[in-house]
Amino acid sequence: MKIAILGFGTIGGGVEIILRKEPGITIKRIFSRHVPAAFSAYDSGLEEILQDEEIDTAVETLGGIEPAYSYICEVLRAGKNVVTANKAVVAAHYRELAALAEEKNVSFRFTAAVGGGIPWLPNLERLKRADTVDSVGGIMNATCNLILSRMIRNGQRFDEVLEAAQEEGYAERDPSADIDGLDARRKLVISANTAFDCVLPEEAVPVFGIRHIRPEDLAAAAAEGKTVRLINRAFREEDGRIRILTAPAFIPCAEPEADVWETGNRICCHTRLGGTYSFGGQGAGRFPTALSVVQDLHDISQKKAVFYQQGFAPAEPDNHDWATRWYIRDAFGSRITDWADTALITQQLTERLQAKEAVFAAVAEEKKL
Amino acid sequence: MKIAILGFGTIGGGVEIILRKEPGITIKRIFSRHVPAAFSAYDSGLEEILQDEEIDTAVETLGGIEPAYSYICEVLRAGKNVVTANKAVVAAHYRELAALAEEKNVSFRFTAAVGGGIPWLPNLERLKRADTVDSVGGIMNATCNLILSRMIRNGQRFDEVLEAAQEEGYAERDPSADIDGLDARRKLVISANTAFDCVLPEEAVPVFGIRHIRPEDLAAAAAEGKTVRLINRAFREEDGRIRILTAPAFIPCAEPEADVWETGNRICCHTRLGGTYSFGGQGAGRFPTALSVVQDLHDISQKKAVFYQQGFAPAEPDNHDWATRWYIRDAFGSRITDWADTALITQQLTERLQAKEAVFAAVAEEKKL
Repeated sequence: MKIAILGFGTIGGGVEIILRKEPGITIKRIFSRHVPAAFSAYDSGLEEILQDEEIDTAVETLGGIEPAYSYICEVLRAGKNVVTANKAVVAAHYRELAALAEEKNVSFRFTAAVGGGIPWLPNLERLKRADTVDSVGGIMNATCNLILSRMIRNGQRFDEVLEAAQEEGYAERDPSADIDGLDARRKLVISANTAFDCVLPEEAVPVFGIRHIRPEDLAAAAAEGKTVRLINRAFREEDGRIRILTAPAFIPCAEPEADVWETGNRICCHTRLGGTYSFGGQGAGRFPTALSVVQDLHDISQKKAVFYQQGFAPAEPDNHDWATRWYIRDAFGSRITDWADTALITQQLTERLQAKEAVFAAVAEEKKL
Repeated sequence: MKIAILGFGTIGGGVEIILRKEPGITIKRIFSRHVPAAFSAYDSGLEEILQDEEIDTAVETLGGIEPAYSYICEVLRAGKNVVTANKAVVAAHYRELAALAEEKNVSFRFTAAVGGGIPWLPNLERLKRADTVDSVGGIMNATCNLILSRMIRNGQRFDEVLEAAQEEGYAERDPSADIDGLDARRKLVISANTAFDCVLPEEAVPVFGIRHIRPEDLAAAAAEGKTVRLINRAFREEDGRIRILTAPAFIPCAEPEADVWETGNRICCHTRLGGTYSFGGQGAGRFPTALSVVQDLHDISQKKAVFYQQGFAPAEPDNHDWATRWYIRDAFGSRITDWADTALITQQLTERLQAKEAVFAAVAEEKKL
């Protein structure tokens, strides 16, 4: 198997290092703005890659929607398989890309896009083969989990922790996609689409980030015997409706998700016959993520895998009677309940879904509620 | 795909129910001492199954070593694939069975044998494809975990909890294989053999059960901020030696394994590049376990899977310098330290492997230490 790599940064470079030990998979060309001198012999334009008949697969690790989307389309149109770690492009365009790949009879895989090194999507795909998945969720953003972990353990403020995380390379210079929950939401949408064989419009899924969380919010959770994590949840109800939300939530300290710290991720699903499954591991990082890319290459070379989904039924989120208590901080700092100095927690807002209450007592951004 | 089922109890019957919705996999014959009246049309002798050319795969859910081992050999010799949930036969005879299956060019799969419904062995097999696994372990026995959970949460004695668990069907009438750790050890041996491509003799792996655990032992753990679980651990050291142990252990309450309750299982591994992975789910139960059998059938029918291991190098456990603190209860009940009334905890026994100390402060059976 001969491949090309589009984008030679942290992940693309990690793929190269791992493939040095894989005699069956050879890198022939690299297309990147900055190809290191040691790899100048591989430096290629996109057009050369498209026209190189020896290359059957391209690995895309550019990130972002454009130009990645256009490049992926061109590679698929040239009759080559694509493996990507790019959650933005998959959340926005999987349906079109899968249709194009099907037309060209090639594979389009993106295990690394959700959960980094966690073998989540291949396992979800496998569970679906013999059972019906009725919910997916978990902790899917390493940056947010790291920031919350440090705020909780060190008692630091959000800004301080974010700044340190940026200096250490755990958070981007523009951290919005992570801390506003958009990255987690993309992974949730991809997971829900795969689990339920549907297409949810990303921007219709409600999202609350962690930008506004203060130490007193964490203290309020602790006073209830709970901790705070950025939680993803999607349920397919018996009537077919999809409830879906990305939000920071109060979770009981005895719940498995409360035990995910630092850059750890844990993704869960529930199936009709098999019950609850969980998959934990490194949700980010060079080698864990690059390993997921390499696993997709193996699956393609062994002709094991084509797509994750069987169907693409359009769907809309429907959370209208999702019952939960909401944590709402008083923006004015006045005493508004006898429960805490600066916040209140509502009664649950409807009667339904009491079992989900504990998980969804979300820390909401004050502007949005 | 047409199959036969050998042994039609809880798991075999669960497989039948699941397969009603799988048009591609048909049950043609059932070989069992007690075939229910509704299935009398399927009732067959073993010889009829062996000679039926339409049947390409047999599911073995008899359990135990004999006659299961002889039957599996006969099925493989007849050129048919075998899927089993039988950990005893796999821990004792995988090498011989794999050799026979290879000779006959058929598959021999046993995903359900380790972790029940957890897709552990297929994921281990997959991780090995691109990385090196250096340790495996976790909580792999649902009965022990249930008994310890109830002792911890309800403050009950071992005998009381065992009796109730037997009445509810969570423990066997003869519970030794579970409570003496033999079932967990089989799963650990199969996991270590698969991870390290070796053959460990089951009986050479040290095992401590939970039969002798008393409420005061659990209280002693709690006083250290720890809890007790039956823990499996196997490490392949850099020099190639294998350290391996099944024992109840004090684990810090903040460790993920401390959060596994009731019949839950969680299996973990660590790889050189990918870090730590965890796989959680139902470690026992009719449908979770039967689903793993059905998944193996799918893998065989899609020609995805043959064996779990690539090699069978003979290996012996070598724990001689495994450093750990041991919890040793004073059998006479006298005050022997100022740390607790009825027990002492040793200093670690050698200097090495300090990081593993917390996990391996094992609750040992008093007779054995």
